[in-house]
Amino acid sequence: MLKKTLLSASVALATMMSTTAFAAENVDLLITDATVLTMNADKTVYQQGVVAVKGNKIVAVGEASLADDYKAKRVLDVDGDIVMPGLINTHTHASMTVFRSLGDDVPDRLHRYIFPLEKKLVSRDMVRIGAQLGNVEMLKGGVTTYADMYYFEDEVAKTVDQIGMRAVLGETVIKYPVADAANAEEGIQYALNFIEQYKDHPRITPAFAPHAPYTNTTEVLQKITKLSLEHDVPVMIHLAESDRENEVIAERSGGKSPVAYMADIGALTPNLVGAHVINVDDADIALLQKYDVGIAHNMSANIKSAKGVSPALKMFDDGLRIGLGTDGPMSGNTLSTIDEFNQVAKVHKLVNQDRAAMPPVKVIEMATIGAARALHMEDTIGSLEIGKLADIIVIDTQAPNMVPMYNPYSALVYSAYATNVKHAIVDGKVLMQNRDILTVDENSVREEALLFADKVRETVIASGEEVR
Amino acid sequence: MLKKTLLSASVALATMMSTTAFAAENVDLLITDATVLTMNADKTVYQQGVVAVKGNKIVAVGEASLADDYKAKRVLDVDGDIVMPGLINTHTHASMTVFRSLGDDVPDRLHRYIFPLEKKLVSRDMVRIGAQLGNVEMLKGGVTTYADMYYFEDEVAKTVDQIGMRAVLGETVIKYPVADAANAEEGIQYALNFIEQYKDHPRITPAFAPHAPYTNTTEVLQKITKLSLEHDVPVMIHLAESDRENEVIAERSGGKSPVAYMADIGALTPNLVGAHVINVDDADIALLQKYDVGIAHNMSANIKSAKGVSPALKMFDDGLRIGLGTDGPMSGNTLSTIDEFNQVAKVHKLVNQDRAAMPPVKVIEMATIGAARALHMEDTIGSLEIGKLADIIVIDTQAPNMVPMYNPYSALVYSAYATNVKHAIVDGKVLMQNRDILTVDENSVREEALLFADKVRETVIASGEEVR
Repeated sequence: MLKKTLLSASVALATMMSTTAFAAENVDLLITDATVLTMNADKTVYQQGVVAVKGNKIVAVGEASLADDYKAKRVLDVDGDIVMPGLINTHTHASMTVFRSLGDDVPDRLHRYIFPLEKKLVSRDMVRIGAQLGNVEMLKGGVTTYADMYYFEDEVAKTVDQIGMRAVLGETVIKYPVADAANAEEGIQYALNFIEQYKDHPRITPAFAPHAPYTNTTEVLQKITKLSLEHDVPVMIHLAESDRENEVIAERSGGKSPVAYMADIGALTPNLVGAHVINVDDADIALLQKYDVGIAHNMSANIKSAKGVSPALKMFDDGLRIGLGTDGPMSGNTLSTIDEFNQVAKVHKLVNQDRAAMPPVKVIEMATIGAARALHMEDTIGSLEIGKLADIIVIDTQAPNMVPMYNPYSALVYSAYATNVKHAIVDGKVLMQNRDILTVDENSVREEALLFADKVRETVIASGEEVR
Repeated sequence: MLKKTLLSASVALATMMSTTAFAAENVDLLITDATVLTMNADKTVYQQGVVAVKGNKIVAVGEASLADDYKAKRVLDVDGDIVMPGLINTHTHASMTVFRSLGDDVPDRLHRYIFPLEKKLVSRDMVRIGAQLGNVEMLKGGVTTYADMYYFEDEVAKTVDQIGMRAVLGETVIKYPVADAANAEEGIQYALNFIEQYKDHPRITPAFAPHAPYTNTTEVLQKITKLSLEHDVPVMIHLAESDRENEVIAERSGGKSPVAYMADIGALTPNLVGAHVINVDDADIALLQKYDVGIAHNMSANIKSAKGVSPALKMFDDGLRIGLGTDGPMSGNTLSTIDEFNQVAKVHKLVNQDRAAMPPVKVIEMATIGAARALHMEDTIGSLEIGKLADIIVIDTQAPNMVPMYNPYSALVYSAYATNVKHAIVDGKVLMQNRDILTVDENSVREEALLFADKVRETVIASGEEVR
């Protein structure tokens, strides 16, 4: 009996081996000789690893020997470079690249500088031109998915469709008159039309983006919550970000924090993604966890504006859905979350007075699977696992700043530049190869942005402000 | 009389014009169409500006029209890119690139991880291999001058000589046995030999580098001070950096701060450059100013190790000699001060709770003329002015992260990557052109470093520690 079993086993093994040798599975892309950071639950890392892609999905991830099982239309030997999930930027305003760095350190900049400028210059053209530039910058910096909040989001959607990236695009709702809506109600209608238009797009998720609790009424926030549940779309909002917000909401709610107020009015749901989330106490954090809210942590923008440091480490350690974001280019000011890594790792060490706090692996988790969780997309993106969508980036480890590499997480967090991203694959398609974007013409994107910048300069000067 | 004067004037003008047209001055290099940040006392910026270089010196800086006055062997039309003084890294340990990121977040890393590792691995070869890689990384990141503290500094000097950069190289003196000296006295002798060897080098300034007040005796610190004044060479030291230092020095001096102790023993002189300078109060700052001490501000390393934030903004505003440094690659972890810009600008805003604090122009000042002042080299480098040495870098403003550019200081501080540096000129020679280093072979530098890294891995594992 023992003998028979052994015999069967060896026959089975021989059959399997011959299958492997003579009937390798056809795939579209095979990445080989990679330092693969899977970002799966075990944080498995493969040296000389392999990733196989068929159509828009990952069909295999593992050791070098796995390569023998596949016959690929295209093989990408990356010679030891890091292969990891595409980065997910959980909060930005891509179109604002055309305003990047304007009036950077002006006090009360939002109300004194940004809002008036937007009133004069936001248009379909501006949104398209700015988003194009933002897309190029993000893709070159390894961002394959981003969450955007702005106006005319259907224009942003067209640019995302064209370049081939993935995005959650939130149409702004705010109580002031803005370029694409005279009031919040019109904003909601604009959003509904946009949602209808893009609800079936394979790479674009349309969403509501109420600007903030204090810039919308309770009724509007409640209506958006209801509609988001009906249409099953995300709601993105700036939350617990500023002193001004604290004051307005406290007055409105009889002393409540923004998060407690949002819970009270029924606006905390699993569809919600809150950006910033700086001014929260333990009770607020418990509420965010209870309602399964996603959180975008934008360290760089938050410290630049001296707003403070979000308790992101506690939220991460408590298991909340939290990922990294860059905020918009008037705040961040660049759009790759690689630029956040260093600051996230270091500033949390500083404020916790602990050099072991926020180790690199947590930062990379917040940039990938954590960010996917923040957007409730962890079933499809955020890690390199069988069955997930093939959003993959390759990081050059031969650049002098990346040599030598003892620990890939540490090298990424403390040493990498956004410009070390070499290739980017989204939905199974190579969108960037050796830093050349294959789907749009980077030069014409830049030229259009530079032309628009001249208009911005003229407008600022005409308004009596300085271009500074 | 009036008529005659006018006539004379017009004759003079005609003569001058003909001189300009027919006898333009010969120069070696003319940079044209530049956004020139001179970093002179007035912070003059020229749009479409010009810089002329003859031999190793700057002979003209100004408006576009100036170009007509010169006939150049070589013209570099930079098409609007930023042209600025080469960056000066006031504190690093370049050779430690071979250890970069090892044990990054280990508590008590210096004594538990770094010192034991150095004991086993520091050698002439290691110092040379690491410095070569550090040089390449710095030059590619726009650093044209750096201040180094390590062992076998004569090996570092050879690499600096070869690549063509400028450096202040400090030979370490420490009370423990180290690779190139059994004790502090031997370290002093090593330094004296090194100083003798390099005192006349046009680009290399040899120096003493007592490791820190708490790792040297009072007698050694006093002897070095005396010798530095006799030989007119700098003294570089880690100063007011750690709690441990505070404790040891307080015990040694009856409760004094490190800076007050150094003043007491006569070790504060204009030759001294203190790195870090975190734990200082107003009285300490007044002492540093009184004795005209230079200061290296290493934000990134200081917050990564959770040591705290130096009051660098106050020291800068008080007029102290202060410049940016990266610290070594086990601390920083990259070696271009461009990587510090963002963090310096933002973390000072955070700790001062003021979004207008530490504006970009101050950061760029601390990276250039401020850093030159910290090293007491402001008469020869740190700004683009007639008569100064031609250490010049060109920053690509067409990269997506740099588009558009409303304010060049802001773009540099909040948006630039070290990889946006396009060309680097030191002592009038183009050392890097379109990111290609012309004086050393980058590939062989990397290959040597990668081979040495294998040895480092083996050594760490053999010692029972993890490679992490």
